[in-house]
Amino acid sequence: MVIVPEGMIADLLTREASFAAVETVFAAMAAGAAYNFPVVREAIGHEDALYGFKGGFDRAGNVLGLKAGGYWPNNLEKHGLINHQSTVFLFDPDTGRVSAMVGGNYLTALRTAAAASVSIKHLARRDAKVLGMIGAGHQATFQLRAALETRDFDKVIGWNYHPEMLPNLAKVAADMDVPFEAVDLPGLVAADVIITITSSFAPTLLAEHVSPGTHIACMGT
Amino acid sequence: MVIVPEGMIADLLTREASFAAVETVFAAMAAGAAYNFPVVREAIGHEDALYGFKGGFDRAGNVLGLKAGGYWPNNLEKHGLINHQSTVFLFDPDTGRVSAMVGGNYLTALRTAAAASVSIKHLARRDAKVLGMIGAGHQATFQLRAALETRDFDKVIGWNYHPEMLPNLAKVAADMDVPFEAVDLPGLVAADVIITITSSFAPTLLAEHVSPGTHIACMGT
Repeated sequence: MVIVPEGMIADLLTREASFAAVETVFAAMAAGAAYNFPVVREAIGHEDALYGFKGGFDRAGNVLGLKAGGYWPNNLEKHGLINHQSTVFLFDPDTGRVSAMVGGNYLTALRTAAAASVSIKHLARRDAKVLGMIGAGHQATFQLRAALETRDFDKVIGWNYHPEMLPNLAKVAADMDVPFEAVDLPGLVAADVIITITSSFAPTLLAEHVSPGTHIACMGT
Repeated sequence: MVIVPEGMIADLLTREASFAAVETVFAAMAAGAAYNFPVVREAIGHEDALYGFKGGFDRAGNVLGLKAGGYWPNNLEKHGLINHQSTVFLFDPDTGRVSAMVGGNYLTALRTAAAASVSIKHLARRDAKVLGMIGAGHQATFQLRAALETRDFDKVIGWNYHPEMLPNLAKVAADMDVPFEAVDLPGLVAADVIITITSSFAPTLLAEHVSPGTHIACMGT
């Protein structure tokens, strides 16, 4: 039985390893060797929380288990905790016995960023040079950093419902020595790749904001 | 974070406490304060295993979580492990953080027996005197013992597809000072309460084997 507390994940898991893991399991899914179970997601009627289970089995990697947890919107204000809370539980596929419990919060951030980046590596045009970002929150910084590590973009352009958060993107771009420019939504027609990472339920990125041939990686809600 | 290994459960949880817990949560469910989430149950295509998640939230008891695991039919022969393997994970309903990991095998045996017994306590006729058993495996002994602790039965009668296993029932009945008699299926018309606890997919107990007014507690497959 392996137990990895949330606080240890950042020292144990790199972006590179996350990318490799997601790329491998996406390939296994395409080959029919890995699959997801039906998702359980429940509004439990307490603390406005959404709680549920995302499980699956990867026959190729011999990995069986689930992520349990969800979204507690009052966590930060009430408890100083992040609102997304999850834990991963793994089982021995040969016996059904639990084999690992792993903090899932930072893992989810790296996984979500890796999923978009794997899609960019394999599906974006070879000559893609401008990366467009919709969203500028905590997770957006993970998405941007992973994308900039995947391809040599010349420029990042970004839009956010709350423009005062765009410096989050500018800082990551500066770290990676790529120029950043805030744009309005129509300005995203200049992007060759667009990542959306918002919690919006309303449509934001419309057809008129997207040029033909653009690769779009839609994450989040 | 509380971790309770499988081997400690028998020393921590009594049949009486299991009965009280199940009775309380059934009452909460009837009052709309507790509910189960949709069940995930997957034939994973490895070791003929069935794996899945049973989750729920009890607002009245402030208990949130799931049981994960399933049925690995080759466990006993290949690994000397019981075929049903499960683990319970609890979460803090106020924050979504994992709060407990508890071995679920013995817990499931006690819970399943308690569920039948709670139904007998509240739904069987007051004058019920003969308890009928269909099934004589490991779980059947839990069902029988719990039922005999719930009501004063004068006699236990039992049938099993494998009659050589009926001494399992006779032994429990003897422990509880109640006479036991093996019967054929039509003989179950003498029962006032019938518990079925088998892994059969075929119909076994038919209408002609049941007298009017009999309480039936169907567990297992």
